[in-house]
Amino acid sequence: MTRARNAPHAHHLSWKAENRIVVEAVYPELDGGRYAVKRVVGDEFEVWADIFRDGYDVLGAAVRWCAADDDWREAPMHLVDNDRWCGSFRTDRVGRHIYTIEAWTDRFESWKRDFVKKRDAGQPIGIELVEGGSILRDAVASARKTDGAALKGIAETFERAKTDEARAALLLSDEAGTLVAKSGLRPDATRYHRELELYVDREAARFAAWYEMFPRSQSGLSGKHGTFADCARRLPDVQAMGFDVLYFVPIHPIGALNRKGRNNAVTAAPGDPGSPYAIGGADGGHTDVHPELGTLDDFRKLVAAAHEHGMEVALDYAIQCAPDHPWVKEHPEWFVFRPDGTIKHAENPPKKYQDIVNVNFYGPHREALWNALKNVVLFWVEQGVKIFRVDNPHTKPVPFWEWMIREVQALHPDVLFLSEAFTRPKMLKVLAKAGFTQSYTYFTWRNFKQEFIDYLTELTQGEPREYLRPNFFTNTPDILPPILQRGGRPAFQMRLVLAATLSSVYGIYNGFELCEGRAVPDSEEYADSEKYEYKVWHWNREGNIKDYVVRVNKARRENPALREFTNLRFYRADSESILFYGKMTADRSNMVFVAVNLDPFEAHETTIDFPLGDMKIGHDDAYEAEDLLSGERHLWRGAHQRICLDPHRNPAAIFRVQPFRHVEFREPGV
Amino acid sequence: MTRARNAPHAHHLSWKAENRIVVEAVYPELDGGRYAVKRVVGDEFEVWADIFRDGYDVLGAAVRWCAADDDWREAPMHLVDNDRWCGSFRTDRVGRHIYTIEAWTDRFESWKRDFVKKRDAGQPIGIELVEGGSILRDAVASARKTDGAALKGIAETFERAKTDEARAALLLSDEAGTLVAKSGLRPDATRYHRELELYVDREAARFAAWYEMFPRSQSGLSGKHGTFADCARRLPDVQAMGFDVLYFVPIHPIGALNRKGRNNAVTAAPGDPGSPYAIGGADGGHTDVHPELGTLDDFRKLVAAAHEHGMEVALDYAIQCAPDHPWVKEHPEWFVFRPDGTIKHAENPPKKYQDIVNVNFYGPHREALWNALKNVVLFWVEQGVKIFRVDNPHTKPVPFWEWMIREVQALHPDVLFLSEAFTRPKMLKVLAKAGFTQSYTYFTWRNFKQEFIDYLTELTQGEPREYLRPNFFTNTPDILPPILQRGGRPAFQMRLVLAATLSSVYGIYNGFELCEGRAVPDSEEYADSEKYEYKVWHWNREGNIKDYVVRVNKARRENPALREFTNLRFYRADSESILFYGKMTADRSNMVFVAVNLDPFEAHETTIDFPLGDMKIGHDDAYEAEDLLSGERHLWRGAHQRICLDPHRNPAAIFRVQPFRHVEFREPGV
Repeated sequence: MTRARNAPHAHHLSWKAENRIVVEAVYPELDGGRYAVKRVVGDEFEVWADIFRDGYDVLGAAVRWCAADDDWREAPMHLVDNDRWCGSFRTDRVGRHIYTIEAWTDRFESWKRDFVKKRDAGQPIGIELVEGGSILRDAVASARKTDGAALKGIAETFERAKTDEARAALLLSDEAGTLVAKSGLRPDATRYHRELELYVDREAARFAAWYEMFPRSQSGLSGKHGTFADCARRLPDVQAMGFDVLYFVPIHPIGALNRKGRNNAVTAAPGDPGSPYAIGGADGGHTDVHPELGTLDDFRKLVAAAHEHGMEVALDYAIQCAPDHPWVKEHPEWFVFRPDGTIKHAENPPKKYQDIVNVNFYGPHREALWNALKNVVLFWVEQGVKIFRVDNPHTKPVPFWEWMIREVQALHPDVLFLSEAFTRPKMLKVLAKAGFTQSYTYFTWRNFKQEFIDYLTELTQGEPREYLRPNFFTNTPDILPPILQRGGRPAFQMRLVLAATLSSVYGIYNGFELCEGRAVPDSEEYADSEKYEYKVWHWNREGNIKDYVVRVNKARRENPALREFTNLRFYRADSESILFYGKMTADRSNMVFVAVNLDPFEAHETTIDFPLGDMKIGHDDAYEAEDLLSGERHLWRGAHQRICLDPHRNPAAIFRVQPFRHVEFREPGV
Repeated sequence: MTRARNAPHAHHLSWKAENRIVVEAVYPELDGGRYAVKRVVGDEFEVWADIFRDGYDVLGAAVRWCAADDDWREAPMHLVDNDRWCGSFRTDRVGRHIYTIEAWTDRFESWKRDFVKKRDAGQPIGIELVEGGSILRDAVASARKTDGAALKGIAETFERAKTDEARAALLLSDEAGTLVAKSGLRPDATRYHRELELYVDREAARFAAWYEMFPRSQSGLSGKHGTFADCARRLPDVQAMGFDVLYFVPIHPIGALNRKGRNNAVTAAPGDPGSPYAIGGADGGHTDVHPELGTLDDFRKLVAAAHEHGMEVALDYAIQCAPDHPWVKEHPEWFVFRPDGTIKHAENPPKKYQDIVNVNFYGPHREALWNALKNVVLFWVEQGVKIFRVDNPHTKPVPFWEWMIREVQALHPDVLFLSEAFTRPKMLKVLAKAGFTQSYTYFTWRNFKQEFIDYLTELTQGEPREYLRPNFFTNTPDILPPILQRGGRPAFQMRLVLAATLSSVYGIYNGFELCEGRAVPDSEEYADSEKYEYKVWHWNREGNIKDYVVRVNKARRENPALREFTNLRFYRADSESILFYGKMTADRSNMVFVAVNLDPFEAHETTIDFPLGDMKIGHDDAYEAEDLLSGERHLWRGAHQRICLDPHRNPAAIFRVQPFRHVEFREPGV
């Protein structure tokens, strides 16, 4: 047994003794500084802390921060109440930052406060003035050249002054106060004992609409493998719907060994293409493209074409391999072999997944394997891909993600990672803390009013707001939720509005806009799932909601309040079937309120309560509410309004609210 | 500007990568491990954490802890729910400890779980058995000698076994499971990345009744200075009242310069003794005793006599000095002098405290000063004092306290410090976190029902429960609260019961038992305060509540539930004037409920609700409630009981509740 590393009887706490000022309860701070908090460029980043010291001196404090390769900067903090201080700065570049706090005794302000009290009480002030002058001299010594000269001037005038009144006036002047504050005279300067991390992403980390597709299904012809060129032809349609990110399931060669057949059959029939998630085969592995899709060059052209259409391409990053992945031969040391010499397949006993083998993350060749996996990401970054959707990250070690994401973002701070963390709550959260930019969540299975309120309140008001950005997918190739199987077209509209306005980043898997709702019975799997076959979609088929998608995405783009997430607040609607919520910009220049009928079958009427106080609208003032979905406009007055949402006419309403500023009536001739 | 210390683009996180298992949200943990939590010897110390890893393997985990100079020990943790684990150990010695968590993959249990599933599904299990045998061999290699032999036996039997059934039975046997678990085979072993501190005190830290007195007032004769011998004569009376700690205000020489007169007069009259808090003069300083009290030897005798009466002596530790304290001459460098050469007195402008000067904690001679201050404590420890009540700690630097207390407790882990932290809430708390054993609180000013419930719920159920032990003083030489000035004898009884039963450690300043309530008008200062003059107390004067004190302290000693603090819970009483609460031991062998009439003027009736479910008493079962103050006994049934508390007869009731186990009636001859 070894002794404790930091033996508890260690006597010298010199760093602690240096720090006279208490700086604690810093917010935000995750797990004692273990993980970074997240923001996007342009955010005003607020830092809070309890700051105080012994006795009654006046304090000063500042937030200090720096980007990876930059110098420290600082912003002043101010006392709010009860020893709680706050300061903020605007983030201005992408990448990893650190921040901390410095506090000090404001000797000059303390002196001024006491001096004025004594003078006003008629006490002698002669020695006090000498002491004030001494602080002035210390400030001169501490100041940098430019400010120092001005301070020195004041100090010299002070020395020459003939009367106590003149000396006092000089020391109490605003100019002296400002210059001493700037001088850097900071007795008892104490740094918070931790440097905390802040990761600043580009805006797409928080605001984007995703569209997921299988490139091989884009030929439009039955039994014909789609190509990247086919994908390029789909771009105008996807752009027209208003999407920002075009996300492709894996585009790599698919294994032939133990390949799955249609509808997840254990054995593939001849010609079955297999699941794109069984990666690797005779044609290559994770850095190759499936030959039938085209060449790497074709892929790069598609990425460029997407950019021209105002979109960027996201790729799937799925670490598992098919048993015939080239790595199995080239690097058998990265896999696990059983006592009989066969490779160990993925399994969840008694289920076996024989088309998949997993790498051994903690085998003896860990470093080479981890680097190879990182290099896969870097390879695709070089092809122009800056967003990765990560398959099943919860079955791979958390430390791998933390390391890999940090490594990639150190080189390319604008790369984003979406965690497919459909798993237990704490694993979902720790993946976000470990570095994932966005996370899939339980949204897909939330259907009722209180469920939404509870879950979204946790995400937007609890600690997750600092690190977890939920990407609300309405559906995925693995999940066709019951509400979409049963609720028909109104359910698709309702789920779209919820996903697109509750969160600021959301996605659909193609077919959603066509209201595709056929499932394998008693499951959430699509019938004839695209995962195991080529599919022909008729992109304008009867009953589609593409116009609705256009309007929802347009509302998102045109309303800054919908670009944020943690500004979500729920408001009262007296019907259990109607969810009512809103988002406002901090300055209230944009205010959006959303009412959604959660019942896809019946119309419901309700009274909704607008938070007029928070909207800065008087209770007698009129306001205009324009429903961005129907185009209807209302001129309302008062907090309570009556609305009706009919699933077959208007399953939801997105009200943009503006104060109604009436032109004042002027009497003629006045 | 310097670059960040831990540059955020550092690429290698090797320690993080080693730790495959996530261990987080550890409870208790204060401020990310910055401060120690507190317990007393004999407490069962529970540690909680979220523990999980990627995939679906079975995990194992243990709490690991060690005392200052001891080896690591460990106790198993178990999964409670939702990836939350818990483990505990019983504290068995006083002093500083560290604790952390280790978690690992339980390879053998994972194998067993999967093996059974496959076998039950009728799948081939031959290779699985080979894999199980391989784990067995690894366990043999890992085990220590004694257990290793037994494991080796099993492994050999396994090798010789002829059938799969025999091999399976052996691997699935309890014996194999137990031995492999003990073998120390811990793949993926991950230590929580922090070692946390736990300070274990002796029981007096949490359970004690304090009695505060001025030794100089113990002569019993007007104008005659009391002595330590006089104090010794008081011991039987204080012991009879049931007190554990006899606390003396400072016993050191008192300064003559600027000495205060009676009732805080700025100038002392001839013969005025001055405030004992103006420490130091011609007769010595902090390690000397005031000559009129006796000699150091007399003091040691008094300490010994107190021990013989079952009490220990607590001393005041007040850092300020009188201007004629010997240190001012011997170590002028420890003080601040003004530009005119005069020493800087304490002040709170425009108020001046000219009988006091403060040391300069952050002057150039800090180390010598801090050591001298520490040595004062160590000096008195050598005279037999193990408890220090610290005067105004919030006007001295927090880092000094953290350092000094740690230094002293490293040598004498049984020394206790009480913080007179009558200050802002965050300073009060940080002093407790920095190491003070106990704290004065705002109890003295809490008078109404909801105030008590809110404040005590924060202290007993919030984070402070882990580090802050409130010592509830009913009064102090500085504070005669309005309720005692106005409420008369019933108020003294009521406040006594509240202090003594809400908290487990409490105190009174002498005179309280005599219902002394005369104040300087419009203030909380005692009239003719003992702080500035000798006092003659008539210890058995008319109207005293000494019998009541005896009963309250007896109830405390005889009921283990009252020795704890965080077991306090409030229950319903329908009168706004009656506070009803209880404390129970974990095993419910002792249950005490207290009802207090907060109105010292009028009788109030109320229905009180006993938490029968939590008391493990059925709703139809009878229970006996004995009021330990009045001696009355009740035989009750059901949760709701009606009581009346009359301030002039029974201002409070302390019910000891026991299930009423009736002797079963036996029919004759059966």
